[in-house]
Parts: sequence; C-alpha cells; structure tokens
Amino acid sequence: MANFKGHALPGSFFLIFGLWWSIKYPLKYACKKNKKVFSIGSKTGFQRIEVIEGAVKAAFALIGILAEQFVPDGPHLKLYNREEHQWDHLMNWQHSTMYLFYGISGVVDIVTHTTKAVPLAMDRMMLSIAVFIEGFLFYYHVHGRAMLDIHVHLLLLVSVFGGSICIFLEVFHRGNIILELFRSSLCILQGSWFWQIGFVLYPPGGGPEWDLMDHGNMLFITMCYCWHYAFAIFIVAANYGLVTWFVQTKLKCTQPMEMELLKSREHESDDDI
Amino acid sequence: MANFKGHALPGSFFLIFGLWWSIKYPLKYACKKNKKVFSIGSKTGFQRIEVIEGAVKAAFALIGILAEQFVPDGPHLKLYNREEHQWDHLMNWQHSTMYLFYGISGVVDIVTHTTKAVPLAMDRMMLSIAVFIEGFLFYYHVHGRAMLDIHVHLLLLVSVFGGSICIFLEVFHRGNIILELFRSSLCILQGSWFWQIGFVLYPPGGGPEWDLMDHGNMLFITMCYCWHYAFAIFIVAANYGLVTWFVQTKLKCTQPMEMELLKSREHESDDDI
Amino acid sequence: MANFKGHALPGSFFLIFGLWWSIKYPLKYACKKNKKVFSIGSKTGFQRIEVIEGAVKAAFALIGILAEQFVPDGPHLKLYNREEHQWDHLMNWQHSTMYLFYGISGVVDIVTHTTKAVPLAMDRMMLSIAVFIEGFLFYYHVHGRAMLDIHVHLLLLVSVFGGSICIFLEVFHRGNIILELFRSSLCILQGSWFWQIGFVLYPPGGGPEWDLMDHGNMLFITMCYCWHYAFAIFIVAANYGLVTWFVQTKLKCTQPMEMELLKSREHESDDDI
Amino acid sequence: MANFKGHALPGSFFLIFGLWWSIKYPLKYACKKNKKVFSIGSKTGFQRIEVIEGAVKAAFALIGILAEQFVPDGPHLKLYNREEHQWDHLMNWQHSTMYLFYGISGVVDIVTHTTKAVPLAMDRMMLSIAVFIEGFLFYYHVHGRAMLDIHVHLLLLVSVFGGSICIFLEVFHRGNIILELFRSSLCILQGSWFWQIGFVLYPPGGGPEWDLMDHGNMLFITMCYCWHYAFAIFIVAANYGLVTWFVQTKLKCTQPMEMELLKSREHESDDDI
Repeated sequence: MANFKGHALPGSFFLIFGLWWSIKYPLKYACKKNKKVFSIGSKTGFQRIEVIEGAVKAAFALIGILAEQFVPDGPHLKLYNREEHQWDHLMNWQHSTMYLFYGISGVVDIVTHTTKAVPLAMDRMMLSIAVFIEGFLFYYHVHGRAMLDIHVHLLLLVSVFGGSICIFLEVFHRGNIILELFRSSLCILQGSWFWQIGFVLYPPGGGPEWDLMDHGNMLFITMCYCWHYAFAIFIVAANYGLVTWFVQTKLKCTQPMEMELLKSREHESDDDI
Repeated sequence: MANFKGHALPGSFFLIFGLWWSIKYPLKYACKKNKKVFSIGSKTGFQRIEVIEGAVKAAFALIGILAEQFVPDGPHLKLYNREEHQWDHLMNWQHSTMYLFYGISGVVDIVTHTTKAVPLAMDRMMLSIAVFIEGFLFYYHVHGRAMLDIHVHLLLLVSVFGGSICIFLEVFHRGNIILELFRSSLCILQGSWFWQIGFVLYPPGGGPEWDLMDHGNMLFITMCYCWHYAFAIFIVAANYGLVTWFVQTKLKCTQPMEMELLKSREHESDDDI
Repeated sequence: MANFKGHALPGSFFLIFGLWWSIKYPLKYACKKNKKVFSIGSKTGFQRIEVIEGAVKAAFALIGILAEQFVPDGPHLKLYNREEHQWDHLMNWQHSTMYLFYGISGVVDIVTHTTKAVPLAMDRMMLSIAVFIEGFLFYYHVHGRAMLDIHVHLLLLVSVFGGSICIFLEVFHRGNIILELFRSSLCILQGSWFWQIGFVLYPPGGGPEWDLMDHGNMLFITMCYCWHYAFAIFIVAANYGLVTWFVQTKLKCTQPMEMELLKSREHESDDDI
Repeated sequence: MANFKGHALPGSFFLIFGLWWSIKYPLKYACKKNKKVFSIGSKTGFQRIEVIEGAVKAAFALIGILAEQFVPDGPHLKLYNREEHQWDHLMNWQHSTMYLFYGISGVVDIVTHTTKAVPLAMDRMMLSIAVFIEGFLFYYHVHGRAMLDIHVHLLLLVSVFGGSICIFLEVFHRGNIILELFRSSLCILQGSWFWQIGFVLYPPGGGPEWDLMDHGNMLFITMCYCWHYAFAIFIVAANYGLVTWFVQTKLKCTQPMEMELLKSREHESDDDI
C-alpha cells in the first residue's frame, strides 16, 4: 500500500515490538542478576512470554498480509493480470512476502518455546532471516523512483541489515544484554522511520509536499535519521533505567540484607576484566 | 551448457544434497541428544556416511565435468581455437572449473574421514572454498547479458555466498545444528533456483518466452526467490520434524522409562540461557 | 565549519584521545601482567580514570557542538530558513550531530563506571555506534564535491569504519590488548588525517592551493594516508615501549626477587600456543 | 617497476613465504599432536624459526624498497619534481610503501619473539595490517588503465583481502591449522598470480601481446585465477602429506609402542564432535 497508512501500519508493529523488547530484556537481565531472589517462577514465566510474543508476531504478520491483499485497491490474491499480460500489484505482493517471513518467525518462536525438539537458537536464526528478507526485498523495491524516495528507503536498510546481523550474532551469543538492547534500539528506529517515510512521501492532512529531488532535503533526512536513532537510544536507556530501578526497589522491600550481599559479590565478578 | 539441461543438472545435484543434509543433520542431532541410548555404532556409522557423501560429491563433480566437456557442442578438452585466435567454449570451461572444486572438496571429505592425519574442520573449509569459487565465477560469468538473465544469476549468488559464509562459520562452530540446517536450506534454495533459472531462460516444451527486459518480471522474480526460500525452509522443517518424531518413537518402544529421565534432564540444561 | 579550524578542532580531539589510549592500555596491560605487585588501588584507580575519560569526551563533544553552532557564520540553533524555503547550515548541523553521539558515548561511559546497573560492555557498544554514525554522516556528506575533496574524506572513512568494527569486537573481547592498541592507532590516524585534510583543502597562511582534480595528487594522497598510519603505528609502539619499560623499572626497584619469579612464570603461560 | 621483473620479484617473495608456511605449519601441527615425543627443544626451536622468518621478511622488504627506488628509471628517493610541478614516480613510491609495511611486520615479528613485553598475537595483527595496506594501495593503483590490466589486479585483491581477513582471524584463533593452511594457500596464489600478471602485461622474450580489451581474455583470466588456486591447494596438500608422513615415519623408528598408544588416544578426542 503506497500511502501513509501502508507505512504507519508496519511502523506501529515495529515500534510496539521495539518498546516491548526494551522492557523485556532489561527485566530478564535484572532477574538473572538477582537470581536467588527471583528464581521462583521466573523461568517458566519468561518461557510463556516468549510463546505469547511469537503468537503476537504471527498475528501482526497475518494482519499485514490481509491488509496488503484486501485493501480496496489490493490484488485480492490475484497475481497475474491475463488481460494486460503483466504482474498485478507487485508491491502489495512483495509486502505480503515480507510479512510472510515474519509470520514464519512467529510460528518458529511458538514451536521452539513449547516443544523441546527444536534447538533454542532457532528462534533467533529465523528472525534474522525474516529481517534479512525484508531488507533484501526493499533493496530491489525502490528501483527507478525519485531520489529522496530511494534515499529514505536505503536509510531504512541500514537499520534492517544492522538488525539482521545483530540477531544472527545472538544465535552464538544468546542472552547477551548488549546485543538485545542494540536490537531493541534498531527496532524502534525502524518503527519510527517508517512513520517518518509516511510523513515525507505522503504528507497527511494536505501538508506541503517535499521536493523529492532537492539535495538539501537529502542531507537533512540523513541527519534526521541519526536523530531518530538518538531518540531510540534515549527510549531504550529510559526503559532500562526504569526497569532496573523497579526491580531493585522491589528487592529492597523484600530482602534488604541478603540483597546487599548479593550486590557486592556481583560487583566484584563484574569488575574482573 | 547454456540450455535447460545445463541448469537442471546442477540443480538436481544441489537438491539431492540439500534434502540429504536436511535428513542427516537432524538425525545426528537427535542421536547426540539421546547419547546413552544410541551410542552403539552411531559414531562409526556417521563416519562411514561422511566418506560415502564425499565419494558421491566427487562422482557428481566428475559427471558434471564430463557432461560440460563432452556434450555434442562442448569443447572436448580443447581450450584455444588457433584458427580464430580466441578461447573456445569458455562457459563450459568455467562450469568445469566449478565442478572441479566440488570434486576437490569431495576428495578432501574422503581423506579427512578415512585417515587421522587431516584435521576434521578441513572438510568444511574446502567445501566453503568450493562454494565461494562457484559464486566468484558466476559473478564474472553474467557480464553483458540481458537484465533479467543477470538478475536471476545475481539472486543465485545470495544463496551461494550465504552458503559459503555459513560453511566457513562451521569451521569454528562444528556441529552447530542451526548452521547445519541453515546450510541445508540454502542448498535446497540453490537447487530449486537452478531449475527456476532453466525455466525462465530456456522455457521447455515451447512455452512462452519471458521478456528479459521487463521491470515487472524483475520485481516478480525477486519475490519468487523469497518464495523458493520459504519453500526450502518448509522442507527442512518438515524433514526435521519427521526425523525427530521417528527417533523419539523408536526410543519410546525400546526404553520408555530410561528415556523419560534423560529427556527431563536435557530440558533443564537446555533451558539454561 | 568548512575551514582549517573546523578540521583542526576534531583532529586535535582525536589525537589527544589516541595518544592517551596508547598510554592507558599498555599501562593497564603491564599492571595486569604484574598483578600481585600492582594490586593495591589499581582497580579503583582505573575505574576513576574511565569516569574522567567519559567526562572529557562529553566535554569535547559539547565544545564541538557549541563551536559548530555559535561561530559567527554558524546556524545559531536555527534549522530552517523560512524566507528562502531551505535548510540552514546543514553542514554545521551534521557536525553537531556527530558530536552529539560522542557526547552520548561520554555520558554512557560515566554511567557505566559509576553505577553497577549497566553492563560494562555498554561503553564500547555506544562508542562503536558513535564512530559508526560519524562515518555514516561523512559518507553522505561529500556528495557532489571536487574529486580530491571526496577522496580525502573517503580515506578518512577507512579509519572510521575500521575503528567502529574494532570497538564492536571489543564488546565481545573486552580487554584484548591487540584490539585496544589497534583502536589507539586508528584514532591517532584519524586525528592526524583531519589535520592533513585541513592543510590540503584550506592551505593555511596563504600557501599554494592543491589542484583538486589532478590524478597525481589523488595517488599521492592515498600513499600519504598510509604514511600517516605508519607514523601512528610508530607512536603507539614507542608509547607501548616506554610504558612497559617504566613499569618494569619501577618493579625492579621495589621487589626485584619476587618479580623475577612472576616474570618467568608468565613467560611459560604466554608461550602455550 | 611496471615491467616483468617488477612483478616477478614480489611474486617470488610471496611464493617463498607460501611454500615455507605450507611446510612450517604442518610440521608444527604434527609435533604438537605428538607432544610427548617431540617435546624436547621443539618450543625454543620454533621460536627461533619465527625470529629468522621475521628477519627474512624484513630483508625482503628492504630489497624491495631499494629495488623500487634505485632501479635506473626509479625515483632515487626524490618525491616531487619541482620543474614540472608534479609528483615523481608515484608507482615506485607506492610499491615502496607496500614493502615498508611488510618491513614493519618483520620487525614486529622479531621483537615479539625475542622479548616478552609484546603480546604474541601482535605479529599476526601487524601482518594482517601489512597485507591490508597492500590491497588498499592496489585498489587505488589501477585507476584508469586498460580493462584486462585492471581485472588482473582486482583478481589479486581477492587473495590479498582474503589473506588479510584470514590473518586477522588468527589474532583470535592462534594456532588454528585450518587458518594457517588457508593463509599458506592464499600466499602461494598471490605469488603465482604476480608471475601470471607479469606474463600477461609484459610478455617476456617478445611473445605475442595480449589484447587488453578482449572480453574473452577477461573470462579466461578469471578462470585461470581459479586454476592457480587449485594448484596452490594441491601444493599445500602435498607438502602437508609429506611432512605428516615424515614425522610419523621418524616416530615409528624411535618409539613404536608408545606412539601407538598416543595415536589411539588422540583419535578418540578428535572424534568428539
């Protein structure tokens, strides 16, 4: 859907996931750090969360596919126009394909965390592939458009391929909080950038059009991308701080003495460079 | 051989290997997981399988070289045409070179798994080099052809170089089931894409020709590549499920009690994130 | 600031940091090697140094932002020129953005080394991101300039992206002296190259102008870049030698006997390849 | 020196080093495998070899620099031609710069293996940098030449950058026989390819000139590069086999009984996938 909503929809999906991850992973990290206190129920709890996350991901993907296929000017599952001897609504089909891989990733998440047959790292591998496919299709997607249109999509690819590499590294470094926070920030960046693309290419509410061939606009938009990322870093940092503060407050209330001991011991092992 | 058969032949080779890997590695993984039950004979068995695999690879490579050289319009081992002062059948020679490196990889497989002198990881290294050489030659292969012809071959390179990197990682992470399944899926993708290239460039049975300069065709073929990969993932997942189900069924019949204990213990160690 | 000072300022920042790192890391390495002798106070001392380093980095970034914004011909925080309907002083804004990310990196350094809530590797991750953003903005920065102008900036990118990758590796290999020295040398290279760019593009003191379109100049400048790096390597090696010599001299004065024992034991473990 | 000798000289250097490495590393590997038998003197012996290797490397680099500077049509250390206001003999100066970094690498080798102050991995890091600089300078070296001239140099870059990455990996995986053999093969490839470039661009003995703009020649030369690599692999494999056979023969003569025990034990630990 080459309009504002077609960019706002995936943008919202990515924002929701990015924000959620920026809460989940710090929480997991804080719980793991204070293992003895939070041991009861936390493991099965986190496993249930992973399953729900996979289900939500698959649901979002399904919504995306349905929206792309059955909007009024969509292809309605028709791929080839026999009268005009050309492919029908290829853009919508490409977007559907992107959603399809995120759907597969969601299903793999569910299977990985409900059964024991699949190795754990498979959820990361499949997500990494899904993100790569998104970038791969976008790369060939923008051929032959206006300069600024191409540029905003190419900028998106930086966060997409960055995310794919980051998630692939998680296959080997599972549970690395640095990579998890990095992924969260890239996901928020992608989400907010989809909204930005929508505002630039299809100004809502009859706002002024952007000059798609102006070199100044291109320089500005590149810089704007960095500001989006600074904003994403700020969000992730704020969420990390809040979650850490929340966990420590709750800890102090329950077991003030024991906690202090644990904390000091952890500092020592952390410092060991 | 720039015709349908010249693409169907390597395509079939890759499909056979991809399918075989998508059975072998899950089987190995399941046996390793249930080590105490399957310990008898499995190690020497798998070693013999590796030797056979190497022999089949070398045989396929030899068939490929012979086919490229001795088809009616082939070079018949002649490299330089002295009358016309130009190289003779360079395409066939390039394909022969690709097969040659797969042949070397097959021989290295055999030597690695029969003698003890060669370090184990050498089989992966040599396979990685063989796949890289394939991609390297393809990259310079398509210079100056029609747009769609170039594009379908460049798409192939994604799976080729992806496979080469994946196998190179296996040098350091040998026996990582994630990488092994990833490799299997890329190999199936390559095989099915060779068939697709054959159908696009040389439609068999007098089918309609593809317009090699149409932009819509290019967008479609990119998407089609992703569908092929979704299909490859599905095949690998199905084979993985079948093998795992088969191993567990067989286990339950023989030692139901002991098995349960083993399984629960494994879950615990797997969960340790 | 597209003038000599605008390149000398960041150049000096990078030179100061590079030189400082080429002293700090060998010192840390020598102290760690002679652990038993230097144990008292060294850990808290190095931690305090990290905090100060972060504060200096943030201060430099602030100076850079203020200089870019409030020089006489700067934007003075004005982004859009409503009269002429175009963006205002985009170059200065881009430079401010680069400094901003270094500022964030400085703040993260301080937080990481004062509180215990943030994982240690976060300081490296954020520095890696800051360096990447610098390279990212430079890459789109030089569009449409003279050949030699583009070339000197692209050469800079080699050290920038090299540095970013090196620091990212440090997330996983923290405390690896090889990577730390490599980073120091790249940082010195970047600093001295900023000065070189200033001298080439804005010859100070009314020196002769460089012909920005001459192919010979381009070849020379590429080679000159390598000489800068040879010089950076020499500086790092000299500092490494001096620091090591200083630590060992100081050791010999205090505990000559014990030292010998330690040294011989270390040699043995070092040799174990 | 843009003539046959100017390519044969570095080609011979690389060939000598490649061949030497393809003997040294298998020998080291075989000795390490049979540790208990070969323990006496082997460690100090190998260390002395490393020092000699560094000295030879530095000597070769010095010969290269002197040859580039003081051939009859060389720059004789003159960099700028003040009469004609242009740089003097930039090609020779670029080659000298390449040799300079190999010289630094040689010196670092010597220092690393004679004193204990420098971390061991530094020799690999510096060699990796030297190889990278070679590729970096070659990349900007060939601008504006004939098609085939550019192509043969770009092909060289594959082995140069491949070698640089391989050596950089050795910083982290020191003593990995796979990487060491890979490096040997790439070094032999580089050496033989330098000779090939000499034969193509400056046919010695008044042979027929190559048509530098012919597309067929370009395709052939790409394939020829792969054959060179197949040849390099063969040489490394042959040397590996000879060395292994030699070590085992010598072992059998001295301690036949003890050896058998060691061997069988090793097989077991090797098999543990």
